[in-house]
Amino acid sequence: MIKPNELAEIELGVVGLGLMGSSIVVALLIAGHPVRGVAPIPSDMKDAELRITKQLKHAEESGILNQPISQYLSRLMLSEDFGILRDCRLVQECVVERTEIKGLMYRKIAEATRGKAIVSSNTSAIPISVLQDLVPNPERFLGVHWAEPAYLTRFLEITKGAKTAEEPAKWVFELAHYWDKEPTFLQKDIRGFVTNRLMYAVYREAFHLIDRKEATVEDVDKSFRYDAGSWITAMGLMKRMDLLGLADFRVALSRLFPELSNSTEVPELMKQMVEKEARGIQNARGLYAYTEQEAEEWEKAFAAFNKEIYRLAAEHPSAPTEK
Amino acid sequence: MIKPNELAEIELGVVGLGLMGSSIVVALLIAGHPVRGVAPIPSDMKDAELRITKQLKHAEESGILNQPISQYLSRLMLSEDFGILRDCRLVQECVVERTEIKGLMYRKIAEATRGKAIVSSNTSAIPISVLQDLVPNPERFLGVHWAEPAYLTRFLEITKGAKTAEEPAKWVFELAHYWDKEPTFLQKDIRGFVTNRLMYAVYREAFHLIDRKEATVEDVDKSFRYDAGSWITAMGLMKRMDLLGLADFRVALSRLFPELSNSTEVPELMKQMVEKEARGIQNARGLYAYTEQEAEEWEKAFAAFNKEIYRLAAEHPSAPTEK
Repeated sequence: MIKPNELAEIELGVVGLGLMGSSIVVALLIAGHPVRGVAPIPSDMKDAELRITKQLKHAEESGILNQPISQYLSRLMLSEDFGILRDCRLVQECVVERTEIKGLMYRKIAEATRGKAIVSSNTSAIPISVLQDLVPNPERFLGVHWAEPAYLTRFLEITKGAKTAEEPAKWVFELAHYWDKEPTFLQKDIRGFVTNRLMYAVYREAFHLIDRKEATVEDVDKSFRYDAGSWITAMGLMKRMDLLGLADFRVALSRLFPELSNSTEVPELMKQMVEKEARGIQNARGLYAYTEQEAEEWEKAFAAFNKEIYRLAAEHPSAPTEK
Repeated sequence: MIKPNELAEIELGVVGLGLMGSSIVVALLIAGHPVRGVAPIPSDMKDAELRITKQLKHAEESGILNQPISQYLSRLMLSEDFGILRDCRLVQECVVERTEIKGLMYRKIAEATRGKAIVSSNTSAIPISVLQDLVPNPERFLGVHWAEPAYLTRFLEITKGAKTAEEPAKWVFELAHYWDKEPTFLQKDIRGFVTNRLMYAVYREAFHLIDRKEATVEDVDKSFRYDAGSWITAMGLMKRMDLLGLADFRVALSRLFPELSNSTEVPELMKQMVEKEARGIQNARGLYAYTEQEAEEWEKAFAAFNKEIYRLAAEHPSAPTEK
């Protein structure tokens, strides 16, 4: 059993300090850990401190800090040097979804920690069992998949690979409860885990409708915001069926399943985006058109939303019998 | 152009007074219309008034009423007799998803209104063009698909069938803005429209994972509540990609699409539910186990959630450039 007063002694590392990585750093700092953040590419290093400070401010405005921001920052060390990971008990990898790059990170992490740290990947697309073959201690490797912003969602997906031992996975699962998460714990390494399989099933169908000009990008967003968006946070998918009485679903799904896209191809619209080097609000070019100012305003609006939905999710926890 | 002061003179009908139908009645009463509700089966009639009053109370608690409940009820007439639909400009059908039953309703509606009313179906599974062949005036028939609770979501999906004329569809689209909706307007009758295609794509994958014991019902709900649930109301699906920078999605989707279920079959778990005559919280038997008391508590919790998410959606409207 991990005790709350031990958190300050459990040093954790994060490798990769993009939007997601920074956000994980913030979540771990808030939980009380000393955190070592490694920026494997110089551009990450340049913006990391600014981004982390900004995210801590967002957390403060959202009412989830109980110390001044400077206190949290005093427990943080950032570097391009993997050497700072030396005493970390767990190192969370959060770099681009490319196997060879991740493999390189794992070698550097293993060297810095002398193979002692548990290593977790935030991957959402590469099987844990594949990445596991790239580390010297596969039994101490697992998937820990976060949602953005990491410090302001209750989501966490813990996945064992084929070779992950039970003990380190359970330790991380236990620890994660101190991070204010409601983690899922998958014993089996299925590709995309649960969340991304569900989300990509939606994306497949959405792109299919858009590519066929049967719906617009705006239609898709409006539909999902105002239908699913009006109940999903309260209950999830399956319990929704219970609320609606279940029975009608059998007929509806036997009618609809055969109509759905089974595509395995990258959608046309996504190909166009790649050709245009669109990076969404990062370069104000994406599925929607943005001016730079609009992109900024929109980020702000979402930060405010985060705060409220986080509170709302806490006020309406699981229905009585949910485990 | 419809003027706001005309709403009190535009009489509307609803056929089918289950959970959804009652909820639509309430939405239309709140908008200011006189409403005629027809219960085609006696059990609907028995509970309809009670249900509608309860929903009006919920609307009142949610702060969206500006008159006493009795005022709204004074504009409502309920009957098993289709004759009360006589002067309705639009009749919304909201009965079970069975073509032959819907066809019977349309004949009764046409007879009662002497073919003058626009008729809309709330179907989410039967093509509008199929239903259209069952009505005497197909050019005045369309899909108007609501989300539950109809009076407390901004969602509405308007769909033209192959034979629907532009003028009545546009009239309904315009009118719907007075119902506090942000309707989508599909020119093309695609099966399941947008929302249900997206949702059933998720359901297909969810049942697939559960049937294969790769995830539990609880895992699926936890994932969707805490991941998608933390952002969907703010932005929908596609804009989310823009926020995350778009580029990583190409790789992720080319990896995940081939892994997704392409099943056209009714899932095992759903078959079991049908065999058990499970009707979710309606008979306290469903994908989750409930006592009757728990089912009731849960309905209350969701009513409270509705109120807040409705407000939250309004406070965080579309990003700047959304149309």
